[in-house]
Amino acid sequence: MEINNNIPQATAKRLPLYYRFLNNLHLQGKTRVSSKELSEAVKVDSATIRRDFSYFGALGRKGYGYNVEYLLEFFRKTLNQDNESNVALIGVGNLGTAFLHYNFSKSNNTKIAKAYDANPDLIGKEVGHVMVEDVEKLDQSLSESDIDVAILTVPGHVAQSVTDVIVKAGVKGILNFTPARLTVPADVRVHHIDLTVELQSLLYFVEHYPLEKK
Amino acid sequence: MEINNNIPQATAKRLPLYYRFLNNLHLQGKTRVSSKELSEAVKVDSATIRRDFSYFGALGRKGYGYNVEYLLEFFRKTLNQDNESNVALIGVGNLGTAFLHYNFSKSNNTKIAKAYDANPDLIGKEVGHVMVEDVEKLDQSLSESDIDVAILTVPGHVAQSVTDVIVKAGVKGILNFTPARLTVPADVRVHHIDLTVELQSLLYFVEHYPLEKK
Repeated sequence: MEINNNIPQATAKRLPLYYRFLNNLHLQGKTRVSSKELSEAVKVDSATIRRDFSYFGALGRKGYGYNVEYLLEFFRKTLNQDNESNVALIGVGNLGTAFLHYNFSKSNNTKIAKAYDANPDLIGKEVGHVMVEDVEKLDQSLSESDIDVAILTVPGHVAQSVTDVIVKAGVKGILNFTPARLTVPADVRVHHIDLTVELQSLLYFVEHYPLEKK
Repeated sequence: MEINNNIPQATAKRLPLYYRFLNNLHLQGKTRVSSKELSEAVKVDSATIRRDFSYFGALGRKGYGYNVEYLLEFFRKTLNQDNESNVALIGVGNLGTAFLHYNFSKSNNTKIAKAYDANPDLIGKEVGHVMVEDVEKLDQSLSESDIDVAILTVPGHVAQSVTDVIVKAGVKGILNFTPARLTVPADVRVHHIDLTVELQSLLYFVEHYPLEKK
């Protein structure tokens, strides 16, 4: 099947969610799922689910729902679950350590294959089964790998200089967990997750826009 | 000044970003800023910035830009920077520990005031200056506090049961870092940050929609 090449960003962002839920259903031995069940499980309204799926062709049938195995196979291909994707992690502080212990590969083939830090006490040690390498050798080590996505968990004041190095080493995607806003060339994607902003934004909504009990 | 009560969610989400940057400018002794400078610093296009600001009334002047101190005062009030906001953290694993060490209050008055875990080795110990309390006493301890926002960093399989307890204790906002999709009453907000999804989504974009060098 041909995948529509113009998937909206919002749709693409939900694909891993769908994939994980379908994988769970499959593990439970379920063979089909309705868009209503799917909607309740992933907290996305069924109209949106149907629209999302339409970008991949009509996969559902009225009164039957969706075939789990078929969907799973489809999403697995789409999300490239069959190829192992290796990513690098820069900065093995508290947050970096959390990521290294977090098992990304439990439900998919993505894993942190390389980790870097400047702390001599950490270099050469294993954290979550990954050997921490010297951040000074980042440039050469990354250039020699096939890694093109990095998780950035360094202190904010070195975020831009580390970014310049990893971009030079060929990284095309950065998951930025530092408070710094990064400047990168046009061919590099940055997804920024700013924990302070996320928390402040939630507090702001809770205080200014209280929801009503139904 | 009266704040427009219908600020779009996307605008509200950018407020803490604006606030932090303006605070930095202020610390550097700058008294005014153009929307172009602001745009470059926070990586939001200037048309969006001007539209965002318009929800708060016309704060800029042509050829002069924005008055930093005025803006700062305005945002400080808007984001409730003058009141201290206490939040609770449930689950002092790797990620929870990272949060406790992460200094939320560096640029604002938000802080994690309470932390809970089930691990007897952690209960009664201080992590990042917060005493870890027994998660068994979560219900009573939270009910007696004025906390209405919680950060959830527990294992996924207990996320819903912990959520039920904190909602009962009066929590109205949850920053969910677990892979679980939570079911909550209509008056509770959940912001979900799923690290696996964020990473997979970035990988998906990098692999399927490579950006071009300008």
